[in-house]
Amino acid sequence: MIQTDILIIGAGPTGLFTVFEAGLLKLRCHLIDALPQPGGQCSEIYPKKPIYDIPAYPEILAGDLTNKLLEQIKQFEPGFTLGERADSIERQDDGTFIITTNKGTKHKAPVVAIAGGLGSFEPRKPLIENIAKFEDKGVEYMIKEPELYRDKDVVIAGGGDSALDWSIFLTDIAKSVTLIHRRNEFRGALDSVEKVQELKNLGKIHLITPAEVKGILGNDHVTGVVVEEKDNEPYILDTDHFIPLFGLAPKLGPIANWGLEIEKNAIKVNNALDYQTNIPGIYAIGDVNTYPGKLKLILCGFHEATLMCQSAYQRIHPDKKYVMKYTTVGGVEGFDGTKKEAPKAVVKAIE
Amino acid sequence: MIQTDILIIGAGPTGLFTVFEAGLLKLRCHLIDALPQPGGQCSEIYPKKPIYDIPAYPEILAGDLTNKLLEQIKQFEPGFTLGERADSIERQDDGTFIITTNKGTKHKAPVVAIAGGLGSFEPRKPLIENIAKFEDKGVEYMIKEPELYRDKDVVIAGGGDSALDWSIFLTDIAKSVTLIHRRNEFRGALDSVEKVQELKNLGKIHLITPAEVKGILGNDHVTGVVVEEKDNEPYILDTDHFIPLFGLAPKLGPIANWGLEIEKNAIKVNNALDYQTNIPGIYAIGDVNTYPGKLKLILCGFHEATLMCQSAYQRIHPDKKYVMKYTTVGGVEGFDGTKKEAPKAVVKAIE
Ligand SMILES: Cc1cc2nc3c(=O)[nH]c(=O)nc-3n(C[C@H](O)[C@H](O)[C@H](O)COP(=O)(O)OP(=O)(O)OC[C@H]3O[C@@H](n4cnc5c(N)ncnc54)[C@H](O)[C@@H]3O)c2cc1C
Ligand SMILES: Cc1cc2nc3c(=O)[nH]c(=O)nc-3n(C[C@H](O)[C@H](O)[C@H](O)COP(=O)(O)OP(=O)(O)OC[C@H]3O[C@@H](n4cnc5c(N)ncnc54)[C@H](O)[C@@H]3O)c2cc1C
Repeated sequence: MIQTDILIIGAGPTGLFTVFEAGLLKLRCHLIDALPQPGGQCSEIYPKKPIYDIPAYPEILAGDLTNKLLEQIKQFEPGFTLGERADSIERQDDGTFIITTNKGTKHKAPVVAIAGGLGSFEPRKPLIENIAKFEDKGVEYMIKEPELYRDKDVVIAGGGDSALDWSIFLTDIAKSVTLIHRRNEFRGALDSVEKVQELKNLGKIHLITPAEVKGILGNDHVTGVVVEEKDNEPYILDTDHFIPLFGLAPKLGPIANWGLEIEKNAIKVNNALDYQTNIPGIYAIGDVNTYPGKLKLILCGFHEATLMCQSAYQRIHPDKKYVMKYTTVGGVEGFDGTKKEAPKAVVKAIE
Repeated sequence: MIQTDILIIGAGPTGLFTVFEAGLLKLRCHLIDALPQPGGQCSEIYPKKPIYDIPAYPEILAGDLTNKLLEQIKQFEPGFTLGERADSIERQDDGTFIITTNKGTKHKAPVVAIAGGLGSFEPRKPLIENIAKFEDKGVEYMIKEPELYRDKDVVIAGGGDSALDWSIFLTDIAKSVTLIHRRNEFRGALDSVEKVQELKNLGKIHLITPAEVKGILGNDHVTGVVVEEKDNEPYILDTDHFIPLFGLAPKLGPIANWGLEIEKNAIKVNNALDYQTNIPGIYAIGDVNTYPGKLKLILCGFHEATLMCQSAYQRIHPDKKYVMKYTTVGGVEGFDGTKKEAPKAVVKAIE
């Protein structure tokens, strides 16, 4: 059982920054995310695109924003349960909560912060009859651990940035990479499209277009896929892995059944105070919440996280009074023993 | 008469970022500040100190934060009335407001955003009987225009960063720089103290310590000051300017008499919706406002400014419905004709 002070569901920008604000209050955090990497929408949907409305960043790539946040919270040693979806919640008699993921991992904390964005990112799956049988047995909808593919034959399907970028990335690891798409045209960053063209010319990516995978073969594990090319008879292509990258769609999912007040597919919170939900001890911050005037913007999640942490502190330490100190004045003391601190003014005679 | 859409009182981080969010909504802004430069507390009190809790900045100097914000809002061509204090407000029959400064400058707008922080920064003045008579006639409490001192004799009084840094700066401009302090010890950044020591050794700064200025001489303009050194008879030092830099203290000041609900020296606002005050059309954002759970932090001012602008938009355009577009998706179109925009994805065949 993983134990922490604030259990954060969702490792998007809001969840990540919560770790920092909690850390200033000496509260520890653990994050759960269905995605294999932190960053939420920023890392899953548009990592290479610029954002212009992060305060004091005239421009920052969404992926860089995620990296800056990870750097900022590093001192506070957050825990991560990645690639798992928070499925169920149980309130204990002592007021703490136990949250269990779809893979059975259990987490316990006195405060839960739902920073679930538009929901848990779930893969769009191709319509292949027996595909469920091969999930995690050669069929993967997201790439969690690239080393899994070392010296293997890999078939990737898809026509967007993920399919392009992973095909490029895996050429250095896999024995062979085949990219299958139902059109000749790919949609993505110009760089990526050009790089795939180049790797194809070099024979490092085997390209099959326009074509679709229509079947999967194997017993305990994938051994091949059935490929249907236009105007040709279907044929079998031997492979160890089949990775359909058709995009991920967010689904509020199981959280909708936790007894929280839901409105417009989001969780209602008390924005006049602390972004708490109708269940005391459970907060909802960032894109996942709703209140009058709500804007689904990154900078709003930062503010909500900050106010929420103050309330969480009172809940965890009902007898203490927290006196806020500016980071500039008090410095930032990490759980890892590091301390950031402004250089002190000197008092010095001039002779 | 200066006219604009949103008149912002206070050019601290909150006021500055308001220009950006208003600009996204195609609303123009003008800022009034008592200080000669933008940045509020960040530029006046601690420009060279690091802040650690600006989201996605593991560390940023307060002065750099101000510069980044100025860069971010440049596209939206904000107007500035600097070095003047907003003193009075009048509501017109058509619902717009007219705000007049202590120097008589008039501004008109349908929406007023008070981002006044801890108040208008007012100088601490030395107790010298006839000093008021010489204000702006050789006595200046802040340096607005360094060129004023070109080839002049200048006496600076004070023992902190401002006195040190301006003494250093003016050695390149003024005919002579004399620094007077009532102690031998100065309190400031180590660099600054060491630099003054060096300039003193080179004869470029004339240092008189421990000593105090006790009188001012002149008719229409300062011609000299009376210096009292410890254990010595007072003497007259000829000078064109006397600049006491004893620090600036914020005072809520005239705003307290505008009929706004005040609590704990701050302005009460509706945090459950749009940070509007008890007077419709007047908002209060950043350090200057108060509500249950309020934190006087920069990142909170950013959020408040953003929500406030949406409400201001509805007030200015009651018949329009604003549909928010992410900056990443819609780009940012400045009033200066520039446009920031994410590179578009391509759709391209791979052959
Ligand atoms: C194309 C695009 C452009 C954008 N441009 C801008 C912009 O310019 N400016 C701006 O401010 N915003 C922009 N946004 C919106 C911005 O990305 C979101 O506001 C932000 O990501 C919200 O952060 P979050 O942390 O609240 O949620 P998210 O980033 O959505 O992260 C939530 C995370 O929670 C996880 N999760 C949810 N439920 C569960 C569960 N039950 N178990 C495990 N994990 C779960 C999800 O997998 C996800 O990773 C843009 C969005 C898109 C799609
Ligand atoms: C030493 C120190 C360290 C700090 N460290 C941190 C930190 O680490 N993190 C953090 O988030 N915050 C920190 N802060 C607080 C932070 O600086 C403030 O929250 C922030 O400056 C508030 O911004 P603002 O724009 O609301 O107001 P301000 O920065 O106070 O700006 C308000 C401006 O309004 C002007 N004004 C007011 N009334 C009038 C009037 N009637 N007419 C004309 N002008 C007027 C003032 O002159 C001033 O320039 C620190 C503050 C100090 C002093």
